[in-house]
Amino acid sequence: MKVAKFGGSSLASAEQVQKVVDIIQADPQRRFVVVSAPGKRHADDTKVTDLLLATCEGLAASKDVRPLLTEIYARYAAIAAPFQVAPELLAEIQSALQQFLTLSPNDDPHFHDKILASGEDNNARLIAGILQASGLAARYLNPEELGILVTDEPQNARILPASYTKINAWAETEEILVIPGFFGYTEDGEICTFSRGGSDISGALVAAGVNATLYENFTDVDGIFSAHPGYVHHPEPIKELTYREMRELSYAGFTVLHDEALMPSYRAKIPVVIKNTNNPTHPGTMITNQRNNLTQPVVGVASDEGFCMIYIRKYLMNREVGFTLRVLEIFKEFDLNYEHMPSGIDDISIIMRANQLNPVLEEELLRKIAYEIDPDELRMTHDLSMVVVVGEGMRQRVGITADSTAALARKNINLEMINQGSSEVSIMFGIHKEQEKAAVRTLYYTFFD
Amino acid sequence: MKVAKFGGSSLASAEQVQKVVDIIQADPQRRFVVVSAPGKRHADDTKVTDLLLATCEGLAASKDVRPLLTEIYARYAAIAAPFQVAPELLAEIQSALQQFLTLSPNDDPHFHDKILASGEDNNARLIAGILQASGLAARYLNPEELGILVTDEPQNARILPASYTKINAWAETEEILVIPGFFGYTEDGEICTFSRGGSDISGALVAAGVNATLYENFTDVDGIFSAHPGYVHHPEPIKELTYREMRELSYAGFTVLHDEALMPSYRAKIPVVIKNTNNPTHPGTMITNQRNNLTQPVVGVASDEGFCMIYIRKYLMNREVGFTLRVLEIFKEFDLNYEHMPSGIDDISIIMRANQLNPVLEEELLRKIAYEIDPDELRMTHDLSMVVVVGEGMRQRVGITADSTAALARKNINLEMINQGSSEVSIMFGIHKEQEKAAVRTLYYTFFD
Repeated sequence: MKVAKFGGSSLASAEQVQKVVDIIQADPQRRFVVVSAPGKRHADDTKVTDLLLATCEGLAASKDVRPLLTEIYARYAAIAAPFQVAPELLAEIQSALQQFLTLSPNDDPHFHDKILASGEDNNARLIAGILQASGLAARYLNPEELGILVTDEPQNARILPASYTKINAWAETEEILVIPGFFGYTEDGEICTFSRGGSDISGALVAAGVNATLYENFTDVDGIFSAHPGYVHHPEPIKELTYREMRELSYAGFTVLHDEALMPSYRAKIPVVIKNTNNPTHPGTMITNQRNNLTQPVVGVASDEGFCMIYIRKYLMNREVGFTLRVLEIFKEFDLNYEHMPSGIDDISIIMRANQLNPVLEEELLRKIAYEIDPDELRMTHDLSMVVVVGEGMRQRVGITADSTAALARKNINLEMINQGSSEVSIMFGIHKEQEKAAVRTLYYTFFD
Repeated sequence: MKVAKFGGSSLASAEQVQKVVDIIQADPQRRFVVVSAPGKRHADDTKVTDLLLATCEGLAASKDVRPLLTEIYARYAAIAAPFQVAPELLAEIQSALQQFLTLSPNDDPHFHDKILASGEDNNARLIAGILQASGLAARYLNPEELGILVTDEPQNARILPASYTKINAWAETEEILVIPGFFGYTEDGEICTFSRGGSDISGALVAAGVNATLYENFTDVDGIFSAHPGYVHHPEPIKELTYREMRELSYAGFTVLHDEALMPSYRAKIPVVIKNTNNPTHPGTMITNQRNNLTQPVVGVASDEGFCMIYIRKYLMNREVGFTLRVLEIFKEFDLNYEHMPSGIDDISIIMRANQLNPVLEEELLRKIAYEIDPDELRMTHDLSMVVVVGEGMRQRVGITADSTAALARKNINLEMINQGSSEVSIMFGIHKEQEKAAVRTLYYTFFD
């Protein structure tokens, strides 16, 4: 049996929801339906989740949020309009929204969670009603009843392992169960949400819990492209990729799925397919633990900007035991994460996300390193981008690195750093921001033309 | 003024010492002469230092070492024979050697140091005598009188900073001072040697102390070659290279100079020249802080075997703050040094010298990592070699990496790792041992033909 998760744009309007109904109807294996809150209907529209966020802020500032609640209700009512849903359903949603006015923003640690989770919760109730009205044996299932148990960390909940066994008890359901994504319940019965975008986590969790044959993640794109469509004209879609490849791609700018969302399905070895609600016959992109088709060694070229690099050189550095340890301890002390740490004989480069620093902190950090390490050379390079060539098949191909560096050299793109570990699922190039687009383009045309 | 250091092979026989005398005579700037102990005269010969080592072992085992002492004395006597040295000089050496019989191997912490240092000390006395006999104003100068002050760490002494000022007082000498290399004196007046091969340290220290214009290091080769002559037929000699380049080359198998020997001259910015006692008109290889001639971006290709690599992969690893810190702490706990640590998104490779491990320790280490890190994948790759392409000019050249990887790909040499930090004095390739020679050869012919 399959778990189908539908994103906000797939549920933004009655027209979109009709497509979702058709998709669910088309395959009786689709027993678990996980839904997001209604998303944008057009570019200038506001997501229900953002309306709810404004409601939180309004309540916290003691403003009148009733116009917002009316706007939110109108979104659900508009979706329900063409369907013959039970009239008490909309009244239930209306009354759930009115409950917000009784919450105390300052005393309730789950204030935000309760309000934000309602976006998905009300939508799940509505979609279940619509499926029933369409003649399907469907019903709404609350995450607490299903068994999604989470840690009590407001707006940043983590799954408790007990969830898997609890969810597994539902595996043999005869009905279609419609489950709101994005939140679970603490052991004390409080609502707690995952970090934002976390409906993907709910879907992956349910798929793992019921041991689904497939986790279908419905979005508004035909799958994952082998390069950013803003950088490359009509990039090829990826048919199949592994979790590892997906991670490498999503690290560097590919944002189809929430970054940590696939952890539960990865651990349970459940294949995931990214599909398009607006084009459901397209095969989409399949994500698996192991990829069989290795004729194409490179699956994608990704990139991300916003990195910086600290370079430390000291004569005979590699004779000093614990040298790197000391550098990392300084990073820990400053609460900074680093991304990569390529090293020469007497030098080391520490690459990090630049958004962790500001000019004052940067100076303090460099001063601390200068004091503790006493290097011969210490400098900071700003405005770095990471460009990553990803593919499981690379390990067996001698020429991928050669082809990549030759392509970059032809375009006169200087390499600040190359990082190729033993995994060879990726090669990473550190280059200057201005050359990022050109680098992605030349690498893409090296492997995809 | 110049400091000239002569290695063991330059002082192995009377014939060789005549060349040394000629060299010193040829340039009145050569005021400070630092000498090693007599080395091998032919491939099957034994160095005086090794005879002294045998003497130590003999005394410690209460064996009769008098035949060894006779053999050692005979080496000095043979060198002295053609020169008209003062007869009391050889008697002095004889009596110094006899002193060993009065030492107590078990109670004296400087027992080894005293015996081993005598190789250089007696040779300095002898060479001073030979220079005098050749009509030069030369004299032996004891390291204590000169001011070489060291820490009290038997057989592993480090220079005390006070040495530099003390040595500097001799800068204006009118005489040629002949100084034994390899040892200094503690503040309590005890002899302590540097780690083996440390005569190069003495030379660099004297050069820094007297602020020499040049430190000449006389060996039995015309300088440093751009690749290992055992791997490449007639490799080009390097005319000029920087300390940084030297370090990168010596890290990976270039062993003309003792690894840490150049630290004092590096800090004092004294240029060093590697010259050949047997071919003194050859310009040799000059080592400087900065290289002006950058038309040739690559100065050499070096390699070394005996590395291994631990590969750790864990899904979402780079989200765990302090992950690498934990790995490094395990390494510290096991007292293991690592060399490099390239990383992907969710994986890291730790490259280390394999001689630090044995099968039992390796299993313990892997078990500890498995327990503490709980990785998705953990494996060890043995028999790795590091091949390094070195050159200060590389930073400005886009194509070096491309040319290197293309050359390796053409020879079907698979890359286990690439490490290129921001320094770009070197690019390092991790490859399988069996392909090391082929890799060095193809890289050499890429940049030197």
